[in-house]
Amino acid sequence: MSNPINSLEKVAGNGLINRRHLLGLGLGGAGLAITGSVMAADNALPFEIPSWSRQPGPGASGYGTRSSHTEYMQRLAGNPNPVYPGGGSSRSPLQYLQGTITPNSLHFERHHAGIPAIDPAGHKLVINGLVRQPLSFNYEDLLRYPMVSKIHFLECSGNSGSLFGANASDGTAQSLHGLVSCAEWTGIPLSTLLDEAGVLPEASWIAAVGADAASMGRSIPINKALDDVLLALYQNGEPVRPGQGYPMRLFVPGWEGNLNVKWLTQIKLTRGPSNFRDETSKYSDTMADRSSLQFTFPMGCKSLITSPSGQMALERRGLYQVTGIAWSGAGSIRRVEVSADGGQSWADALIESQQSDRALTRFRIPWQWQGGSTVLQSRATDDKGNVQPTRDALIATNGLINRYHYHGIQSWSVVDSGEVRNVYV
Amino acid sequence: MSNPINSLEKVAGNGLINRRHLLGLGLGGAGLAITGSVMAADNALPFEIPSWSRQPGPGASGYGTRSSHTEYMQRLAGNPNPVYPGGGSSRSPLQYLQGTITPNSLHFERHHAGIPAIDPAGHKLVINGLVRQPLSFNYEDLLRYPMVSKIHFLECSGNSGSLFGANASDGTAQSLHGLVSCAEWTGIPLSTLLDEAGVLPEASWIAAVGADAASMGRSIPINKALDDVLLALYQNGEPVRPGQGYPMRLFVPGWEGNLNVKWLTQIKLTRGPSNFRDETSKYSDTMADRSSLQFTFPMGCKSLITSPSGQMALERRGLYQVTGIAWSGAGSIRRVEVSADGGQSWADALIESQQSDRALTRFRIPWQWQGGSTVLQSRATDDKGNVQPTRDALIATNGLINRYHYHGIQSWSVVDSGEVRNVYV
Repeated sequence: MSNPINSLEKVAGNGLINRRHLLGLGLGGAGLAITGSVMAADNALPFEIPSWSRQPGPGASGYGTRSSHTEYMQRLAGNPNPVYPGGGSSRSPLQYLQGTITPNSLHFERHHAGIPAIDPAGHKLVINGLVRQPLSFNYEDLLRYPMVSKIHFLECSGNSGSLFGANASDGTAQSLHGLVSCAEWTGIPLSTLLDEAGVLPEASWIAAVGADAASMGRSIPINKALDDVLLALYQNGEPVRPGQGYPMRLFVPGWEGNLNVKWLTQIKLTRGPSNFRDETSKYSDTMADRSSLQFTFPMGCKSLITSPSGQMALERRGLYQVTGIAWSGAGSIRRVEVSADGGQSWADALIESQQSDRALTRFRIPWQWQGGSTVLQSRATDDKGNVQPTRDALIATNGLINRYHYHGIQSWSVVDSGEVRNVYV
Repeated sequence: MSNPINSLEKVAGNGLINRRHLLGLGLGGAGLAITGSVMAADNALPFEIPSWSRQPGPGASGYGTRSSHTEYMQRLAGNPNPVYPGGGSSRSPLQYLQGTITPNSLHFERHHAGIPAIDPAGHKLVINGLVRQPLSFNYEDLLRYPMVSKIHFLECSGNSGSLFGANASDGTAQSLHGLVSCAEWTGIPLSTLLDEAGVLPEASWIAAVGADAASMGRSIPINKALDDVLLALYQNGEPVRPGQGYPMRLFVPGWEGNLNVKWLTQIKLTRGPSNFRDETSKYSDTMADRSSLQFTFPMGCKSLITSPSGQMALERRGLYQVTGIAWSGAGSIRRVEVSADGGQSWADALIESQQSDRALTRFRIPWQWQGGSTVLQSRATDDKGNVQPTRDALIATNGLINRYHYHGIQSWSVVDSGEVRNVYV
C-alpha cells in the first residue's frame, strides 16, 4: 500500500497529523488500527444474509422514530428538587452527536418552574409599557407575519460551570458541557412587532416575561431587541416544542440562554432594566472580590473536543479522528487549533461544516495515538479575534466563586490504558 | 399611523408588494387585516392568568416530544398494497413546516420492501468488484473515519408526478409535492473508502445495494461517486433513523432520491451500469414517443409556494405573506420570482434563509389580497442559470407518459371565497 503511516505529515506534538490528510488516504494501510477484512473472491458474500434482508419490513409511519439501538442517547437531567418543582436542566449528549444541528428531542433544556402545557388558542403576547399603542397578539395572527430563518447555537450561561470548581470532576462532554445546542430557528423579527406598537424615545430596555409558573423574566437593551432578536415560532422546521417555549419564545442570537425567554407572554418597554430575580440573585457573575457583574450577555468564544472525551476509552493504539464543536457569541468561528501535548504545540483543525454566524461549527483533525499519557485540548478563535482562554487565564480575571460564562480550554487526559478523563492542567 | 397600505410599493400585478417591505412596517395600520387589540391601560392584563401559569409543570425528559396541539402534522402515506408489502412512500407536510430543515420525524420516506430492523452489530458494508483489495467494514470501524457535514435537500424523482396527469387533482402541497425534504447529513466521503479499496482503472461505475428485502440497487458513475457522495451515518445530528437507512445510507447530493440507497450493504465497482430493476422498469423517463431515458440523475430547478397552497382557505381580505421553498440539483438558488396574476407579471421574492448548495431555500413576499380570483405561481432560477419551466414547456419536451422529474411551475388558484386549489393554467 502507498501512504504508510510514516509518510503522514506531523503538524504538532504527540501524533497530530495534517488536517488535509485522510481524504484519499488508505486507512487499511500497514500499521493503522482500522482494518477491513479481505474477502476470498470478488463476488463472495463475506457473511450470511441477515434476517432483516429475508422478508419485507413495515411501511412508513405518520411520524418517524429512531432505532431502538440508539435509545441510549438521552438527555441527562439533574435530580429533582422537591422545593423547586419543575426546576433544573437537561443536557445534550454531545459525545454521541455529529454535525452541528441538534435534533429537537435532544436539545438541552433549562426550566425554572417546569414546562407549562399551553393551548395556543388561549395564549397571548402583549407588548406594552413605553409604546405609542399597547398591543395584544394571538397565535394565529402571529403566524401571518413575515418570518426569517437562522441557524444559531443556544447556550445556558451556567454551562460548564463546574469547571470553576477547585477539583476536576470526572464527567462527560454531556455532563460537563451539555447545556449548548444548535438549531434552525424561524420567527418574526422582534423589531417588526415593536415598530407596530411604536417604541417611544424614552424606552431603553425591554422586559420579557414568560407564561410559566415562575413568570421568568429578563431585561434586554433596546438596541439588541431591535437588531437581531426573533420571536421564534419554529425550531428545525416544526413548531417550537413545549420544552422550548411552545407556542413562542424569544431568541436572542449569541447571548446567554436565560434571556431567550420561553412561553413568552409579555414584552414591556421600559426606561431601564427591570431587575428580575434571574438577573440579580441569579445570572449575575460574582467576581473574586464578591462584587457582581450584571447583564453579562454575550457568550464567549469556546470549543470542546467531543471525541475522545470524558469517560470514553481508546480501545487500541492507532489513528483517531479528534472531533468537536466550536462557537462564539460574537460571530463566526475562524479557526480551531488542537493540541495533543497539553498545550505545548498546536495544529490547525479542519472545519468540516458550513460555517455561519453564531452557530455550532464542527472541527476535526487526525491523531495517531501511540499509547502513553497525554492531554488533548482545543482552542477556538472567532472572526472578531477573540481567542478561547486557558482555564488559568479565565480564573485569573473571573475568580472561582462565579458559576457563569465559563469558556476556558477543556483538557482531556488520555492515560496508557486508553481512559479519557477531565483534568486541569 | 404612518405607512398606510396605499403607500406600499406595488411590484407586480394583483397586489404583490416590494419584498423589502414589512420589516419595520406597522401591520396594525389602517386597512390591514392583522390587528392588535388595544389595551385600556399601560399595565392592565388583557386576559385572565391562564391555568398553566398558576402551578409548576413537569420537568425535562430524556427525550423530548412535541405539543399535542401540533400532532396533526403527520406524514401522508399511500394506501398499503398487499402484493407489494412495505412498499410506498410517506410525504412531508410542507404546508405546515417553516424554515428549511425538515425534522427527522417528518422527513419523507420511500420504501421498496419496508423498513428492515437492522442491528448495526450484524451489518456489514462490502466494497468489491474492480478494486485492488475487496474490503468489508463493520459499523464501529466506520464511526472512526473522518466525516463531513452538509445541509442538502433529498427529493424522490417521482415527486410531483401527478402533475403530468391530464387533469389537475385537488391536492395539498404535501400530497402533490411532499417527496422532498432537507437535512444536515454527516458521513464519510465515499471517496475515502473507495481509495482505501483501490479503484482499478477499468472501473467506470459503482453499483450500490441495500440490505432491505428488495435488495434495492442503483448504478452511479464513478466520477460522481468520487466527487461529493457520502456514506451518511447521521441526519440532523443523530444517527440516521431506520426509515432513512439505519445504520447507513448513500447520500448523493442533488441527484434523484432513489440513488441514495438506504441500509447500504454493498458497493461494487463495475465497468458499466448494472441495469437494476429500479433503473430499467422504474426510474427511467418514458418520453412521448415511448422511448425511455435511463440515468436521468440531477433533480431540476424547482420551487413551490407552500402558503397559501392547495386546500387552504384565505379567511379575510388583506395582507398575506406568500412563502415557499426552492431548490436545484445543479447548485444554489439565485432568485425566486412570484406572480399573483397567473404569470403575466412577476416580482422578486426575498430569500429568507441562509442559501447553500443543493439545499432548500425559503422565500417570501408580501401580498395584499383584495378578494376576487387569481392564480399564484413561483419561478426559481439557480446559480447555473437554469430557470424553472412552465408546465406546458416541460410537457412539450417530456410528454405526458413520464412520471419522473416533474419540476414545472405550480399554479394555485385563489377564488373569491378564499379557497386555494391546484390548477393548470
